[in-house]
Amino acid sequence: MPRVSADPIDLLRTRTSEKWRAFPTDVLPLPVAEMDYPLAEPIARALHAAVDRSDTGYAPGSRPIAEAFAGFAADRLGWQVDPARVTATGDVSMGIVEVLRQAITPGDGVIVTAPIYPPFFDLVTEGGGSVVEVPMSGGIDEGWSLDLDGIDAAFAAGARAMLLCNPHNPLGFVPDADALRALADIAARHGATIVADEVHGPLAQPATPYTPFLTVSDAAREHGVAVTAASKAFNIAGLKSALVVTASERGDRVRAAFPYEVEWRMSQFGSIASIAAFREGGPWLDGVLASLDQNRRLLADLLADELPGVRYRIPDATYLAWLDLSALGWGDDPAAYALEHARVALGNGPQFGASVGRGHARLNFACSPEVLSEAITRLAEARDR
Amino acid sequence: MPRVSADPIDLLRTRTSEKWRAFPTDVLPLPVAEMDYPLAEPIARALHAAVDRSDTGYAPGSRPIAEAFAGFAADRLGWQVDPARVTATGDVSMGIVEVLRQAITPGDGVIVTAPIYPPFFDLVTEGGGSVVEVPMSGGIDEGWSLDLDGIDAAFAAGARAMLLCNPHNPLGFVPDADALRALADIAARHGATIVADEVHGPLAQPATPYTPFLTVSDAAREHGVAVTAASKAFNIAGLKSALVVTASERGDRVRAAFPYEVEWRMSQFGSIASIAAFREGGPWLDGVLASLDQNRRLLADLLADELPGVRYRIPDATYLAWLDLSALGWGDDPAAYALEHARVALGNGPQFGASVGRGHARLNFACSPEVLSEAITRLAEARDR
Repeated sequence: MPRVSADPIDLLRTRTSEKWRAFPTDVLPLPVAEMDYPLAEPIARALHAAVDRSDTGYAPGSRPIAEAFAGFAADRLGWQVDPARVTATGDVSMGIVEVLRQAITPGDGVIVTAPIYPPFFDLVTEGGGSVVEVPMSGGIDEGWSLDLDGIDAAFAAGARAMLLCNPHNPLGFVPDADALRALADIAARHGATIVADEVHGPLAQPATPYTPFLTVSDAAREHGVAVTAASKAFNIAGLKSALVVTASERGDRVRAAFPYEVEWRMSQFGSIASIAAFREGGPWLDGVLASLDQNRRLLADLLADELPGVRYRIPDATYLAWLDLSALGWGDDPAAYALEHARVALGNGPQFGASVGRGHARLNFACSPEVLSEAITRLAEARDR
Repeated sequence: MPRVSADPIDLLRTRTSEKWRAFPTDVLPLPVAEMDYPLAEPIARALHAAVDRSDTGYAPGSRPIAEAFAGFAADRLGWQVDPARVTATGDVSMGIVEVLRQAITPGDGVIVTAPIYPPFFDLVTEGGGSVVEVPMSGGIDEGWSLDLDGIDAAFAAGARAMLLCNPHNPLGFVPDADALRALADIAARHGATIVADEVHGPLAQPATPYTPFLTVSDAAREHGVAVTAASKAFNIAGLKSALVVTASERGDRVRAAFPYEVEWRMSQFGSIASIAAFREGGPWLDGVLASLDQNRRLLADLLADELPGVRYRIPDATYLAWLDLSALGWGDDPAAYALEHARVALGNGPQFGASVGRGHARLNFACSPEVLSEAITRLAEARDR
């Protein structure tokens, strides 16, 4: 599979996105979840054509993007999606909040599996819930798993929903169908809702395929609502489109109760880019997965060679590495130390969960091997100074 | 001033937006607020360049678009905006909802001035309020005004906020500074909040300039929060960016209380297009205003010639005409009749307020003179059949 190569650093520095504008130019920016690859050609072509026909009015609702996603889901993800059971919105975070607003009563507990994508904490609050942390089981050495007993206990104690991150950000962990089926049974037993963020699904490596939550059982379809998008896999998070997908009458009622405007928050260019991605983006995505496979292994080699005290587990999905840097003695938030002393920007570990993130940081390896190598060298030099 | 001409109908029918996809091709679509003009060249150029550098990651927060808007507001609107007092979000509707969530307690009354842009009713509910209709004073013959006594009474009866539409959609009415100053005083007396939707401001005709609410008095700055965007004036509603602007510590507290994610809901392409519009879009906007001036007068002539029973007041702003079609005997919702019998799609009048919208419809005249003429001819033929 031919790899997709990252753009040259000089071109990347002309991007105006948060990743490329949040830091001075002497910093290598590896925190924000944006990839350094060029857009898939079908997406670029579709966007240029949309500009040429001045197609910047309101997006045409959920149906066109839903049909494109259903095709992609059937072809690549083994997931039969009914386009009539999809409501579009602006982004995955907005979808999660709107689902929570329907699925819980203000004040209800909502389970998150720390370490976890930091906005999850804010989204629970915004959706009216209160955060219940059930940390992931396992660890970097033995591998990760959902703490099903802990989740069961949290539901028994009153939590009414859970944010499932499938695959998991930042761990790159891909839960298998058995674990998801067990989770669905637990939710069913408690009459709770699983809000499944599946935006990283298409970025699972071929050897560890991702299982869409709504495919595993009737209980999952009854108690699950999936939220997904082309945004992560195709690097179009800034274009703003996402999909809320249901597969039962209980799930449908969540979508049906959304305020009128929710669907019209999808951007027209997000819709156009996503349709192109879902229909024609497969070869590009295969090339990106090959590049990410190379980089996830390269990172292991670089750490072994240059920073042997740093602990890392090669992820099965996504382009994010969860690093335990505590051996370096850089304090609770090694990302702050790395920014100051190595001019490498990483994601702040404690923000992924105070209980489990101390001494950790998240690194985005969707960059060129040269940038990744330079980043690790800079970190090693900072350690040696 | 050279006019900007609408795109040919064959090109328009290749657009994939709601306006051009909601109806069969034998229908002239004049309901959705999208203009038929080509994108301003600086916007098209900025978007093409963004595609070429794959600049589709997360937008860089509020500051760049806020600074561009502050320049535009000072140059064209007589409005001194502090970029530090601006928070971006996805669209004006999202901004209104988030402001309401901070400004009222669930269940509080929120005043809307019917006939009014229909989503306002939904946004009040989504923001936790209950709708209090205070219809506009005046009418098509004598002209419109805010019913300040009615608004005062509604606040006295317990309403805690008002959605001000400045300029007014669908009436194209531009309140003057005295009226806005009186409104601010009323809000101050009741300790209430004016949420000022100012998205149509740049589309006021030069003879009837728009007055930004936050410029009229200290009371307006204390009790007002403005929400605006490049979306309407520059026809980029599908790109999703808007600005919440404040000018007092009381206003700042509203923005400061927004959930973390609100700012990150702006699309990167909405930001890029808006910055180009605010910085370089002035000449194009002047040309559009000249075309709209022609069409608003042409519509009066066409109606006088072909549909003399239809009542219409030439609007002072925007590209929307509020038509009283009741003389035609087409029922409470003449838009439904027009769609079926004339193959012309208009905005459903009763949705703008059941009490005042019966027999009315909204027509979007941001099209070519030929399309406008054809639409009125079709309506006249339907009347004659």
